[in-house]
Amino acid sequence: MRIDAATLERRLDELYAIGAQPDGGTYRPLYGPAWAAAGECVERWMRASGLTVRHDAVGNIWGRVAGADPGKNIVTGSHVDTVRRGGRLDGALGIVAGLTAVEALLATGKPRLPIEVVAICEEEGSRFATNFWGSRAITGKIGPEEAASVRDAHGMTIGDAMRERGLDPKRIQTAARDDIDTFVELHIEQGAVLETSGRALAVVSAIAGGAQLEVVVTGQADHAGTTPMNLRRDALVGAAAMIQAIESIARALGAPAVATVGKIEAHPQQINVVPGSVLFTVDLRHVDDGARRALGERIQSLCRTTASERGLGIEIRTLHERPPVPMHADVRGILERAAADVGVPAVSLVSGAGHDAQILAARCKVGMLFVPSIGGRSHCPEEATTPADLELGTRVLASALALLAY
Amino acid sequence: MRIDAATLERRLDELYAIGAQPDGGTYRPLYGPAWAAAGECVERWMRASGLTVRHDAVGNIWGRVAGADPGKNIVTGSHVDTVRRGGRLDGALGIVAGLTAVEALLATGKPRLPIEVVAICEEEGSRFATNFWGSRAITGKIGPEEAASVRDAHGMTIGDAMRERGLDPKRIQTAARDDIDTFVELHIEQGAVLETSGRALAVVSAIAGGAQLEVVVTGQADHAGTTPMNLRRDALVGAAAMIQAIESIARALGAPAVATVGKIEAHPQQINVVPGSVLFTVDLRHVDDGARRALGERIQSLCRTTASERGLGIEIRTLHERPPVPMHADVRGILERAAADVGVPAVSLVSGAGHDAQILAARCKVGMLFVPSIGGRSHCPEEATTPADLELGTRVLASALALLAY
Repeated sequence: MRIDAATLERRLDELYAIGAQPDGGTYRPLYGPAWAAAGECVERWMRASGLTVRHDAVGNIWGRVAGADPGKNIVTGSHVDTVRRGGRLDGALGIVAGLTAVEALLATGKPRLPIEVVAICEEEGSRFATNFWGSRAITGKIGPEEAASVRDAHGMTIGDAMRERGLDPKRIQTAARDDIDTFVELHIEQGAVLETSGRALAVVSAIAGGAQLEVVVTGQADHAGTTPMNLRRDALVGAAAMIQAIESIARALGAPAVATVGKIEAHPQQINVVPGSVLFTVDLRHVDDGARRALGERIQSLCRTTASERGLGIEIRTLHERPPVPMHADVRGILERAAADVGVPAVSLVSGAGHDAQILAARCKVGMLFVPSIGGRSHCPEEATTPADLELGTRVLASALALLAY
Repeated sequence: MRIDAATLERRLDELYAIGAQPDGGTYRPLYGPAWAAAGECVERWMRASGLTVRHDAVGNIWGRVAGADPGKNIVTGSHVDTVRRGGRLDGALGIVAGLTAVEALLATGKPRLPIEVVAICEEEGSRFATNFWGSRAITGKIGPEEAASVRDAHGMTIGDAMRERGLDPKRIQTAARDDIDTFVELHIEQGAVLETSGRALAVVSAIAGGAQLEVVVTGQADHAGTTPMNLRRDALVGAAAMIQAIESIARALGAPAVATVGKIEAHPQQINVVPGSVLFTVDLRHVDDGARRALGERIQSLCRTTASERGLGIEIRTLHERPPVPMHADVRGILERAAADVGVPAVSLVSGAGHDAQILAARCKVGMLFVPSIGGRSHCPEEATTPADLELGTRVLASALALLAY
């Protein structure tokens, strides 16, 4: 089986150029012009390879090869949208490698089961106040009110954005499928574990569960010159103590526990005023659901104690919570066998990042392969993987598809 | 001598209504419509009281009473501009109490030396990227390039804003004066020291010196899910350690040392990304210049050590630095004598906040009186002082003006 590595790299370059930003990286927000152009590009490739293309109600693009026998579909692919200043590989690799792998397989003959390559419309949540839009549509998990209520930063609803692309929000439910047997995806690790351990491939064991919290600490805004230190209720000093403790708790719990304060806002945000309130977010993850809950509880308890000790008010809101999702044992077995067939030692790895597979797992068997991220970088212009690792990952994906569909 | 407390309160109400904001408080930015309306109001009061009114080149309004003898001028007053959502008293009190005190004195006879009440055009720096615009004009300290280079948030230069009010930036130098003998001002404390100690009046001993720093901490932005805790260089966790230590240093040094982190920005400010860089500001103040420098040096050294220990980059920029300004001993003596004449025990207090007196001190003798701020609140709609304290402060101001000019 011949993997066309040159075409793989060329297609990744071509997608990366769509949505290119003046300050580096690319941005293809859902239903925007760059998103639409990337979809047209993927569709053109699919048609050129002889795949039958269709768009579903939310704009997922499906390229299909019929199978010799009747049966459920074997699907591979990833998402076509990106974060702001996103890199060349996140999402794009899963689509391009999926198509390249299917092309290599088709050169060997017609599959037994139907195979589909999917360009999922959205996963990142970088335009609308929602994410997993594509995979939630495929699993019938989009609520009837979402099209009219979910908005972007300019106040446009996701439903209106769909209409701009000729998609009818009333038809969202028609995107749901129950005819998928297995979904496999090749993705970059987005961390430095493979690189640090000198390995070229991982079979994902599970996608970590997590929670996102919003913490609002309330003190009193006072004049920075006239308020003695002992008469202050400084919300930022309190928040700083919490941020330090949150890091300590995650470290103390040990890997794979992680906790991150990514956003912070102080009010009134003036150089000469003691901060009266501070909002910050916490993103925490663990592959073990009990440990994930314990991590969240410890963080909340610590924040409340710190606030109380300092005479500060505190409100903690859970924005989002999700349990860990194990990859299907059968699919893990097939991916390990495929790696062995290709002759590459595959390690087992937990995904700290979320992926469409965690959503699709509700309706089909799922599995994922990771290739190394140089320097662990992702979601940035520096996101990169060596051509050798990209080719290797694509080859293992093709072998797995062969085991599944041939 | 009769202080017309009812008129004092009514005038404070009238000024507070000019620039009233929909969400409470008032806003009279330099050269804006509310600023101009407040100036017209003050001018009307001055004329009604028989003062001779003139506007100088930057828009300071001077109401003058000639003296029986030749001699330099005795000046009282404050600034007419406010911060955003400012209160009823900051600035306004000094103008209204000054005028009310002079009216009370005029009822007793003509002064020996000329007396002026001044409404200084700007002190707060809440529109343009500069402050002390009025008092710097009076002391000839406005640089020749400032009118064309200093801008507001909309990009308008302060020179163009002057022209909109019929003021000619080329004439700024003509606002400089060297014929002022003494400047005295009644102001609210803006802190809670008087209230906490149960005192009604303070004679200010000095205005604290200070520095404002901008600290930029640089780590590495990484994926919050895929980057283990031990592989992170989290700029926000580092900044949090610094913010806590800055507070500890100020507390350890003891009153009147204060240090405040008022502004903070994290980048990329995303819930699921480890912060790659953080900018925060430090405002530090002390009345002793050696202690102020030591405070600044300790804070900088601590921040650098923390950054180095955590593998973070750091850049510290001094935005602004000013030495403490002692009030003139003669004027302090007169203010203490005036308080004694009125029968109120006056405490000596350092001003943690900046005031026009610190600028005017370069060209004349200066002194200040403080009345209590309820709850220590200022620069907000809650800014308040009891009518009894306002009347008392005005009475002591009038007694001091009598000692200086009669």
